[in-house]
Amino acid sequence: MLLLHRAVAPGLRQVCRQRSTLSRLCIQASSTSDSCQPQHPSLTFSGDASSTRGWRVMGTLLGLGTVLAYHDHRCRAAQDSTRVYTKEEVSSHTSPETGIWVTLGSEVFDVTEFVDLHPGGPSKLMLAAGGPLEPFWALYGVHNQSHVRELLAQYKIGELNPEDKVPPALETSDPYADDPVRHPALQVNSQRPFNAEPPPELLTENYITPNPIFFTRNHLPVPNLDPDTYRLHVVGAPGGQSLSLSLDDLYKFPKHEITVTLQCAGNRRSEMTQVKEVKGLEWKIGAISTARWAGARLCDVLAQAGHQLRETEAHVCFEGLDSDPTGTAYGASIPLARAMDPEAEVLLAYEMNGQPLPRDHGFPVRVVVPGVVGARHVKWLGRVSVEPEESCSHWQRRDYKGFSPSVDWDTVDFDSAPSIQELPVQSAITEPRDGETIESGEVTVKGYAWSGGGRAVIRVDVSLDGGLTWQAAELCGEGQRPRKAWAWRLWQLQVPVPPGQKELNIVCKAVDDSYNVQPDTVAPIWNLRGVLSNAWHHVHVRVTP
Amino acid sequence: MLLLHRAVAPGLRQVCRQRSTLSRLCIQASSTSDSCQPQHPSLTFSGDASSTRGWRVMGTLLGLGTVLAYHDHRCRAAQDSTRVYTKEEVSSHTSPETGIWVTLGSEVFDVTEFVDLHPGGPSKLMLAAGGPLEPFWALYGVHNQSHVRELLAQYKIGELNPEDKVPPALETSDPYADDPVRHPALQVNSQRPFNAEPPPELLTENYITPNPIFFTRNHLPVPNLDPDTYRLHVVGAPGGQSLSLSLDDLYKFPKHEITVTLQCAGNRRSEMTQVKEVKGLEWKIGAISTARWAGARLCDVLAQAGHQLRETEAHVCFEGLDSDPTGTAYGASIPLARAMDPEAEVLLAYEMNGQPLPRDHGFPVRVVVPGVVGARHVKWLGRVSVEPEESCSHWQRRDYKGFSPSVDWDTVDFDSAPSIQELPVQSAITEPRDGETIESGEVTVKGYAWSGGGRAVIRVDVSLDGGLTWQAAELCGEGQRPRKAWAWRLWQLQVPVPPGQKELNIVCKAVDDSYNVQPDTVAPIWNLRGVLSNAWHHVHVRVTP
Repeated sequence: MLLLHRAVAPGLRQVCRQRSTLSRLCIQASSTSDSCQPQHPSLTFSGDASSTRGWRVMGTLLGLGTVLAYHDHRCRAAQDSTRVYTKEEVSSHTSPETGIWVTLGSEVFDVTEFVDLHPGGPSKLMLAAGGPLEPFWALYGVHNQSHVRELLAQYKIGELNPEDKVPPALETSDPYADDPVRHPALQVNSQRPFNAEPPPELLTENYITPNPIFFTRNHLPVPNLDPDTYRLHVVGAPGGQSLSLSLDDLYKFPKHEITVTLQCAGNRRSEMTQVKEVKGLEWKIGAISTARWAGARLCDVLAQAGHQLRETEAHVCFEGLDSDPTGTAYGASIPLARAMDPEAEVLLAYEMNGQPLPRDHGFPVRVVVPGVVGARHVKWLGRVSVEPEESCSHWQRRDYKGFSPSVDWDTVDFDSAPSIQELPVQSAITEPRDGETIESGEVTVKGYAWSGGGRAVIRVDVSLDGGLTWQAAELCGEGQRPRKAWAWRLWQLQVPVPPGQKELNIVCKAVDDSYNVQPDTVAPIWNLRGVLSNAWHHVHVRVTP
Repeated sequence: MLLLHRAVAPGLRQVCRQRSTLSRLCIQASSTSDSCQPQHPSLTFSGDASSTRGWRVMGTLLGLGTVLAYHDHRCRAAQDSTRVYTKEEVSSHTSPETGIWVTLGSEVFDVTEFVDLHPGGPSKLMLAAGGPLEPFWALYGVHNQSHVRELLAQYKIGELNPEDKVPPALETSDPYADDPVRHPALQVNSQRPFNAEPPPELLTENYITPNPIFFTRNHLPVPNLDPDTYRLHVVGAPGGQSLSLSLDDLYKFPKHEITVTLQCAGNRRSEMTQVKEVKGLEWKIGAISTARWAGARLCDVLAQAGHQLRETEAHVCFEGLDSDPTGTAYGASIPLARAMDPEAEVLLAYEMNGQPLPRDHGFPVRVVVPGVVGARHVKWLGRVSVEPEESCSHWQRRDYKGFSPSVDWDTVDFDSAPSIQELPVQSAITEPRDGETIESGEVTVKGYAWSGGGRAVIRVDVSLDGGLTWQAAELCGEGQRPRKAWAWRLWQLQVPVPPGQKELNIVCKAVDDSYNVQPDTVAPIWNLRGVLSNAWHHVHVRVTP
């Protein structure tokens, strides 16, 4: 029996220790509800077809082990569940060595031995280690079912200290004190201003990124705006009329809804830093996310203010309601030609994945410019104007531009490079993770790929040998509209691990429909601001024999 | 004096041999015209300012040597100019060892010792070695001046055999027998069908490529069409009317004129072949050229036939009047959305650089699709229709597509890849040439850069050390309209040769305004058809100490 476990699910080894006698004793000792009966999880779980499928597959592999672990823990739970733990105590239990603890409401659970049985994979559960489950369960609705709670109940070891349930008081002297509470899964690159990305495991878990883990790129404190008094000022064209639009006014424009991927110019900057120091936040591969946005089309709003396309080049300048201590607001601009093109689908968005925009993402209104760098998607939008020149904002003129690797802070001439608008083709591997140890046999490589300007990703090549040989991955996710491929493709490749390999250098590279490709290496695209980091993405893994 | 020559123009060494005594003798022996007087070329040549400038610079360096060489040859010319040579004899004189001969009209010249003095550079004159000068002089108007002819006269060694002036008879059984006569500077990759490219020295000599050396990519014999009876058939929309347009009918549409670079999908294929064999013509870096095109806008013609944009994706199919022995014509298609967009400026062109289209380039009418691969610019256009699917032509469906390097002729599925439309960012070095030996001191690197889809080239980086360090080159040529950068940028970088270097690995790479870049190496973009070869371009040169 132990041999069988080893063959089907090596992660179960630890769980199986001392099992044969203990589990039989526990079945006798356990009391109360129906869920107490030894059952195969894949049979007991109900729910919608797609969420059940995952459980069923895992269940087939893990069923027997789960049943046994489940009984072990019912026994323990019965013994310990009255103890009280502080939040600090819980937060120190985040590894197999210390035990892995989580909380739900006021209850504390030791899930050390369940981690490997977690149908969504151990790494997902580990994201919650030492803290509350709620933020994660909020993302994954499948957990909100009675049998999941019943399963968890078996791992209960006690109660949370009642004092630890009070949220921390606001520090009012801090300009960031009023920033919203964030999801704990976000990997924080900077607290003030808040900049954070979802971990790779969660990034491509869903085609649409759930709002709470959508990457956040703030330049300033988050304004706290009253939707009732909010007004968007749109400067009228000569002969036209300036507009002061309430949210209700905006709702009256035809509502336009599109799926758009946003990417920060600094996504994957940390790889550039490895070549040579750059100025900027150390984004890993997660400064990119995808949402369903809804709002008024900018072209409709501009038209109402009397604007139309001009013969000469012009720019639509956006100003946010976030500002620094001197009162300077965040600002950026896009060419008028893009703004006025109905096919470019530029939005004044007030909904993100069917919800009002979260505060971190621009509540109540932000710009969404499909196919264009995140920096132009101005949040907390306060003012729109049409100007003969680009926005004078620092972030338009003195930042978010690319330069030759030879240019440093002594020689840089920001006027010599165009502001980044459309981004180049990009891709990255989200599974397996760098440094992970994988089983021999087969490996599943997963990731995302996207290109700017509405160019569809048409192929992702994956290599297990550092780029010597390649195989095309399977593209998943929503289909792409021609010339309006605003959203990423997720991709995966299930491939045999070459026999005898002790490690793999996994690489991905994408091709878009103008057949642009990613550069092989980072150094030749290195630039002093660490933007536009789109070289092949590498992940090194070890293989267990 | 000999020392002085060595210092200013080492190429003169050979010319200077035996000079000191001979030249003095010749001045005495020479007779007749004013041009016989010893004169500094930079002073005697008149003409427009820009052409004079080149002569003046060269003159400053070479003036003295030229004067001397010129007198040597006046002496020789006086002795030999009555001999008669066959065309074959002339064609065997193409190197310093055999002597370098050229013809002009019925006269034969030995220009061996003038080659190094040629103000346009020796390599340009060498293109005409062993044959007539006329095709080259037709490209470079500066030669059509009396003092140039007088200078040449000094090198005359005889007359061409009168029989050799007759053009070769047509071989009527050959389907290609009626193909036009081509410019001898073209480097031929295939005679039947005719495929040829200009040599690098000429490619970037002019921003606009002269018609006779514009790269030629034919798939079939060149049809010989009568402009009076030519008709373009445009299939009408349902409810619209089909059109049968004569050239005069086409002239009645508003005439639209734009500068557009055309590039073959196979440009630089020869570099892919070095990685692994591919199917296709061995294009070097010259399957790209730029012309000023004029014609009717396709959108205007389609509108007259009742076509308009559709909700569903549709394609405009083009059929050429060239055909294979089975009667199958060349064909291709582009999306209707591009065809109908006035901003995309798709032309039915009847003029190329102010002339009617040359036969090799589609006389009397071809399609010009700015920013799109050459294969869609259908020549000798016979038929236009709007279809729900792409053209069924072999060249649309079973060719001109990109694949992963792992795909071979046994595994290729042409339906799995989209047809190439917009091309990726591209650049190449035209000067110095690969294998050349350059002087130490300074080197001037020149080349071209272009990107598809109207994306402007914003930067070209040049490296002298194989890609370790980079410098941005100076961009030249016409300015680029935003979103309509249909034409290439020429570029150059004058840069010190690092002291002590015996050889240089010169590399270039371009960046376009969506910040796409070229891939570092060829192997990872290798594909079985050898298309889309846009890795960094390398040129290896030796440096004289």
